[in-house]
Amino acid sequence: MDTQRQFDRQLEELKKKLLRMAALAEVMIDKAIAELVERNERVAEKVPEYEQEVNRLQIEIDEAALALLATQQPVARDLRFIMAATKINAELERIADLVINITECVHVLAGQPPLKPLVDIPRMAELARKMVRDSLEAFVREDTLLAEAVIMTDDQVDALKDQVLRELLTYMIADPQTIERALALVLISRHLERIGDHATNIGEDVIYMAQGQDVRHPKTPRPTEP
Amino acid sequence: MDTQRQFDRQLEELKKKLLRMAALAEVMIDKAIAELVERNERVAEKVPEYEQEVNRLQIEIDEAALALLATQQPVARDLRFIMAATKINAELERIADLVINITECVHVLAGQPPLKPLVDIPRMAELARKMVRDSLEAFVREDTLLAEAVIMTDDQVDALKDQVLRELLTYMIADPQTIERALALVLISRHLERIGDHATNIGEDVIYMAQGQDVRHPKTPRPTEP
Repeated sequence: MDTQRQFDRQLEELKKKLLRMAALAEVMIDKAIAELVERNERVAEKVPEYEQEVNRLQIEIDEAALALLATQQPVARDLRFIMAATKINAELERIADLVINITECVHVLAGQPPLKPLVDIPRMAELARKMVRDSLEAFVREDTLLAEAVIMTDDQVDALKDQVLRELLTYMIADPQTIERALALVLISRHLERIGDHATNIGEDVIYMAQGQDVRHPKTPRPTEP
Repeated sequence: MDTQRQFDRQLEELKKKLLRMAALAEVMIDKAIAELVERNERVAEKVPEYEQEVNRLQIEIDEAALALLATQQPVARDLRFIMAATKINAELERIADLVINITECVHVLAGQPPLKPLVDIPRMAELARKMVRDSLEAFVREDTLLAEAVIMTDDQVDALKDQVLRELLTYMIADPQTIERALALVLISRHLERIGDHATNIGEDVIYMAQGQDVRHPKTPRPTEP
């Protein structure tokens, strides 16, 4: 009984660390885009620190998961939970990496006059941030409906990415002086799109964990099917 | 003894499936870039099929790993091997995804006159392909030196990515008619760079598996250190 309680506490600890990582990732997205919109470098100055904390958490979570697998030898739901935790861990670490890529593009833009008022990119960032939050919320609550909502939101992010590209292409073609800035914005939109992809992966992991059912490649015919 | 033999056979099976995935990913990279260089759509026509096979293998490998963890409750090296296999599995699936993104950019270019003779992008593709191959070779042989070589190659891929961007920017600025094509090539170089990143992740997983030592964030100070 005591062992079970200790095990449960360790699982809770794992959850808390993942939530902390996700909260950091959210703040990183917010700050990076705020720096872009407000054109104020100080807004995002803590982002590299946050990323380091995410990296530390990633290692801690992997080690904790490995220790749990080795010492508790969990099966069934607990096993699926721990496997999901290690996958979500990797997704969150990549999301933080992508925010670092975004800040690099933002720094390219910092020294130059603004190209245009930014609407779609902050909107993409807001959607991506919400996807990250909701996917983790879905994980801790084992809420597959919320996980499905996250997956569906990805279409909106993708549509915005295409819209951003189309609009920026017209700027580039009309005025070569805009090319470098427009390209930086295109890359930012791509990084945001990938953050959405990672949140989608988390949503899929949650559904797999909860239902023991793989939704990652629904259109892939399985060789075992008739 | 018999159980141990069965377990070993299952681990071998896992290895084989990962090698098959990596071989598919390699062929996909080759074909996608050959289509780009040779400007012949038929060269890469099997790429979507290969990606479907990669997706099927991903699910099979995850299920096999989960079954091994649940039924064999491995510890120490075997446990680290299985955890590495699930991570490598995810990396390979993403590499295949990225090749699909590359073929989309290649299709944008297909209907238009060639922008320039391609040198750096095929070189990047060759490096990325070799990184994928070597990282899996390092995994099956538990060869940490080879894994380190993979990680070092990533700097060359990154340098080529920067070079591609600089060169294509000059085309775009000199002639707005080149913008759409140049942008497609920039995005291809980004996708190749990310394939290199995923192979690097595999290399790091191999070192972690072999040495029980995390090399993913060497510059991150651990909170437990003085």
